[in-house]
Amino acid sequence: MPRKTDFPVSRVRQYLEPGPIVLVSSKWRGATNIMTLGWHTVLEFTPSLIGLVISSGNHSHRMIRDSRECVINLPTTALTDTVVGIGNTTGAEIDKFEHFNLTAQEAEKVGAPLIGECHASLECRLHDDALVERYDFFIFEVVKAHVAVSPKHPETLHYTGDGVFMVSGRIISRRLQFRPEMLG
Amino acid sequence: MPRKTDFPVSRVRQYLEPGPIVLVSSKWRGATNIMTLGWHTVLEFTPSLIGLVISSGNHSHRMIRDSRECVINLPTTALTDTVVGIGNTTGAEIDKFEHFNLTAQEAEKVGAPLIGECHASLECRLHDDALVERYDFFIFEVVKAHVAVSPKHPETLHYTGDGVFMVSGRIISRRLQFRPEMLG
Repeated sequence: MPRKTDFPVSRVRQYLEPGPIVLVSSKWRGATNIMTLGWHTVLEFTPSLIGLVISSGNHSHRMIRDSRECVINLPTTALTDTVVGIGNTTGAEIDKFEHFNLTAQEAEKVGAPLIGECHASLECRLHDDALVERYDFFIFEVVKAHVAVSPKHPETLHYTGDGVFMVSGRIISRRLQFRPEMLG
Repeated sequence: MPRKTDFPVSRVRQYLEPGPIVLVSSKWRGATNIMTLGWHTVLEFTPSLIGLVISSGNHSHRMIRDSRECVINLPTTALTDTVVGIGNTTGAEIDKFEHFNLTAQEAEKVGAPLIGECHASLECRLHDDALVERYDFFIFEVVKAHVAVSPKHPETLHYTGDGVFMVSGRIISRRLQFRPEMLG
């Protein structure tokens, strides 16, 4: 399992803006669950706001709506088969932590567990549910972030539909072409 | 310039869900503009809904708010320097199509122009502005999609902040591990 340390919540865009598949963990009335999710966007740096589409067809929807909390976990390509398995099963039938042999770690500010095997885990509290009825769109505030010490740019999975993922990881820097106020 | 053909609007997630940087083109009162944008999410297949964060600090914000239309264009790594240049300049000062030597092509259903050099261009009409005041979050419906015939999975840019992009393109398929109802 990667060793994780505290990371500034205002900078989590580094991991989410590239658009990876994430694993969202939740807890409600003693039961935990995990879902795969590809429909998300950064909304604001400070407060650190993230929008997630959590379809009402998912077992996690009600758990997250009622607990008003979740953890957004970032898997790398090392967890590809786990990501697919979690997306193809339902928490109504199995205990996903147990079934996929994942480590539930205690979070600091929310009840939902961190997934130990993931590269990053972002503890989130529901910030605005204005669009939950209409679009299943939840706006969360990241209240605590844990990120693996290395690598800085892990290989991540980006879902295209139809069972196919693109892989990100190689980086190109254009830092010198940016105006200073655009960086940071 | 890539040769583009019609593409089903219900399937544009293939290009947006992986989370690439996009170029958003607009037109208002005879003037065109382009902005780079990394904060977006798919919201629904049918109707084909996409959420975009268009900060009010951008010249495009007012143009898109008033015209209620835009085109989401997908650049590949071949356009990296153009993407950076567009993000570091403002339409208040320059004509971006002219300055970056890009081809404005006529759209079919909206007034905003397609960017000929991009791999895909999605014509969009504003569907819901409920969260524009609070979060600069616009919900658009894709009403017409144009996609390059090849390659099927072009190399795309995924922004991490701080002048650094990750590159996607290599794919891995886990199609055989998906339940049939999860595909398509």
